[in-house]
Amino acid sequence: MANPVGNFVVHSLRGTSQVFFMENALTGVIFFAAMAYASYVSGVWATTIGAAVGVLVATLTAKLLNCDEPSVASGLYGFNGVLVGAALPTLIAVSPQLWVSVVVGAAVSTVVTAAFGATLTSKWGVPGSTGPFVLTGWLMVAAAYSFGTLQVTGDTPKLASDYVQGLASIPQPQELVEIFFRNIGQVYLLGPAISGVIILVGIFIASVPAGIAAVAGSLIAMVVAIGMGVAPSPVSQGLYGFSPVLTAMAVGVIFLKPSFRVAVYAVLATIMTVFVQGALDVLVAPGGIPSFTAPYVLTMYLFIAPKKLMAPHPHTPVSGHLIEHGREAPAHPAGAAH
Amino acid sequence: MANPVGNFVVHSLRGTSQVFFMENALTGVIFFAAMAYASYVSGVWATTIGAAVGVLVATLTAKLLNCDEPSVASGLYGFNGVLVGAALPTLIAVSPQLWVSVVVGAAVSTVVTAAFGATLTSKWGVPGSTGPFVLTGWLMVAAAYSFGTLQVTGDTPKLASDYVQGLASIPQPQELVEIFFRNIGQVYLLGPAISGVIILVGIFIASVPAGIAAVAGSLIAMVVAIGMGVAPSPVSQGLYGFSPVLTAMAVGVIFLKPSFRVAVYAVLATIMTVFVQGALDVLVAPGGIPSFTAPYVLTMYLFIAPKKLMAPHPHTPVSGHLIEHGREAPAHPAGAAH
Amino acid sequence: MANPVGNFVVHSLRGTSQVFFMENALTGVIFFAAMAYASYVSGVWATTIGAAVGVLVATLTAKLLNCDEPSVASGLYGFNGVLVGAALPTLIAVSPQLWVSVVVGAAVSTVVTAAFGATLTSKWGVPGSTGPFVLTGWLMVAAAYSFGTLQVTGDTPKLASDYVQGLASIPQPQELVEIFFRNIGQVYLLGPAISGVIILVGIFIASVPAGIAAVAGSLIAMVVAIGMGVAPSPVSQGLYGFSPVLTAMAVGVIFLKPSFRVAVYAVLATIMTVFVQGALDVLVAPGGIPSFTAPYVLTMYLFIAPKKLMAPHPHTPVSGHLIEHGREAPAHPAGAAH
Repeated sequence: MANPVGNFVVHSLRGTSQVFFMENALTGVIFFAAMAYASYVSGVWATTIGAAVGVLVATLTAKLLNCDEPSVASGLYGFNGVLVGAALPTLIAVSPQLWVSVVVGAAVSTVVTAAFGATLTSKWGVPGSTGPFVLTGWLMVAAAYSFGTLQVTGDTPKLASDYVQGLASIPQPQELVEIFFRNIGQVYLLGPAISGVIILVGIFIASVPAGIAAVAGSLIAMVVAIGMGVAPSPVSQGLYGFSPVLTAMAVGVIFLKPSFRVAVYAVLATIMTVFVQGALDVLVAPGGIPSFTAPYVLTMYLFIAPKKLMAPHPHTPVSGHLIEHGREAPAHPAGAAH
Repeated sequence: MANPVGNFVVHSLRGTSQVFFMENALTGVIFFAAMAYASYVSGVWATTIGAAVGVLVATLTAKLLNCDEPSVASGLYGFNGVLVGAALPTLIAVSPQLWVSVVVGAAVSTVVTAAFGATLTSKWGVPGSTGPFVLTGWLMVAAAYSFGTLQVTGDTPKLASDYVQGLASIPQPQELVEIFFRNIGQVYLLGPAISGVIILVGIFIASVPAGIAAVAGSLIAMVVAIGMGVAPSPVSQGLYGFSPVLTAMAVGVIFLKPSFRVAVYAVLATIMTVFVQGALDVLVAPGGIPSFTAPYVLTMYLFIAPKKLMAPHPHTPVSGHLIEHGREAPAHPAGAAH
Repeated sequence: MANPVGNFVVHSLRGTSQVFFMENALTGVIFFAAMAYASYVSGVWATTIGAAVGVLVATLTAKLLNCDEPSVASGLYGFNGVLVGAALPTLIAVSPQLWVSVVVGAAVSTVVTAAFGATLTSKWGVPGSTGPFVLTGWLMVAAAYSFGTLQVTGDTPKLASDYVQGLASIPQPQELVEIFFRNIGQVYLLGPAISGVIILVGIFIASVPAGIAAVAGSLIAMVVAIGMGVAPSPVSQGLYGFSPVLTAMAVGVIFLKPSFRVAVYAVLATIMTVFVQGALDVLVAPGGIPSFTAPYVLTMYLFIAPKKLMAPHPHTPVSGHLIEHGREAPAHPAGAAH
């Protein structure tokens, strides 16, 4: 507590580790090592620098907004920012305005995190998780098409009918091993299998059950994606695995207490995430944006939302509808929230 | 109660009838007869088999998840599954992986039903209705474009500008009668007018007011669609009628207590559903997915959500915003839902 | 109170002024003058007539539905209708069915306003604002593509890849002044700078702080849009300014109590709105619809939603999930809302 700058760095590193649900500054350091390795291989350092800028700006914004202090300290306001900061330079060519996008996007990711916390979480009991990154990232990437100073370097937008399908033959064993690790590294948008290895080490250091769930998620994703005949290229790049890895961890060990029933439930969620990945790739393509972790986010929301004592509405009248009770209504004045 | 298998079948048949808001196993049997007739005409039995698999898997999943027992028994966890099971083989060519999609989709439809029940219904007083079918169905169909083992056989995706418009001349009387019944059968994605006749009989057996509302919905939809100049082909196939039929029933007699005021309100909702049908057909087309019952679902949500004593926010400050009250905040610890 | 028709007109004029968060019938009259001036310049009077029809129908619908009387009297049920009525004739060629669309759309905008009030506002503390206009307007415009009697006259739909980008050179001083005012007039879809002048006068008459916020919003939007290299044409037309103007007013002085902290927060929100404008233009383009005020609505929702004591969910189990507690559940019966 004596060193505010030191604390700030620790909180930001915890935010870096929270991308995989961990609260562990050492794991955060290891994740940065995985990013740095990928930058070393690709020669593009903007992604690693962007991640650092993103998590620092997001965490600083949370402190300036007086967000809940324990949440800030545990990194819960940083993990969406680190992903925004890693994603934008991956998809947009470097320019001064790119860095404006990173800073604005990271700061806004904190506001969106607070918004999700006050609505989805506080009212519906659903964790926001990386939803704020997905929303903010989509907006910043889509905006780049409208801004002459930003050039999107990824795939061009297309319609579902443009999709090239190919029955994937089963990859060779060595490639299967590489896919297994790329499935993990791609959560941070990292291509090299070695980066996936480093990240998995970081997860196991923080939590053995979380590491086991990540392993299981990657394996299930490979089996389902190959079995359903996904084209070889995205499978090989790990693009069909990173969301299922997150789902397996989130539903299997993080947001539900591990048990046999929960494990079966998490397997269904993980399988569904592969379908949602295939679906969202198609559905967001006309907008020219990648699906990011949206397949995980959507699936996790749907699987975590069900609560006890909350059943579907029977096919009988709802209570208190405006049209039946409007005449007695004006007792209370207009509006005021809550 | 002595026969668990018999109970299970009855609960599944009730689920089949709940597509039209009825809780009546006989009506469920009649609906299966309507599906079987359409399969007999088309020679494609996968749709009827898919519907059976869908409702059984969805109901079984609900039992395994220990969902609210009275809801399961009344079929409220089955009607989204039966639609998923009927829809996927209608749109995707038969293959082993199609059946994987049906089983996964039906199981997930139960999770989504529980999720909608715990959020939309329990918190906002809005019935989930066939929203879980729409969401799950969209995901499974869109995913098929990414999976080499699944071939989408419906229309190819297109942009709004590709739309072929044609002023519909008013169809001949006999065709009007056929359209009237197809508007009802298409709720189950059935093309033959006879299937619509059978379904309408099933509805009247369970509830006369519901049957009258279905008749009114089909008539209103025809008048509005033809009056607005919808192209002849979709009108003729009943594609502009099935959502308005559901809206008329839901808003007119199921979720509101019937009265003159409610009837007028339901007419406005039914008319709007035709507009929403036209809109969603255009808006979801780039994604290569059909609108399913989304026009009904969206319109019904908007018309059932208004409640007494809940007014718009005036243009004055909201209470308790983070930025004004952040400093006093950290008394409560982070997070926990509710 | 003695004159119901007079009251009704006053309530409708207040609704006209509420588009800019004001409750002032004189301001409403001035806004109609701004619309009339634009109609005089363009020769198209359907927009002004549509706005009048829209606000009258929406306000009348609210009275018929027995909506909260103080809200109706202050115009809170009218401002979405006036925008629907102004927007549809701007985008769709005049025909008898256009007027059907205007009347149906305006009536439905009141239902949607009530729906947003009962959910977003009452449950999440987020004002609905012009969200109902955006949703209703999108549906009515998209539907026009499916209706042979309605011809959409705006841009044809396109993909993000079709976007023509151009680095905007900084406009000449006189054009900057015109852009400044067009940024304000475009809230009402008005092109002439003079209309923006008239509207700004109307705002200042009702509230000086609101007027200052509008001025600041327009200036910030110009700087950000030009700095990010938006193409000259939309900047020149004021299309990059009207949503930021609304955001600056809403976040800076209407929904939060003005202070230095709030001003900084509002500046971030206003900058973000320019990014969201660029993003939504791209994302809604495949559907053939304009973004309307959605950039303001989305940004404002995200910036107003955060509340004190509502933190993100920590990465620990959620409470009361169905799968863990299902067995004890059936004590309560199924369903019923609230």
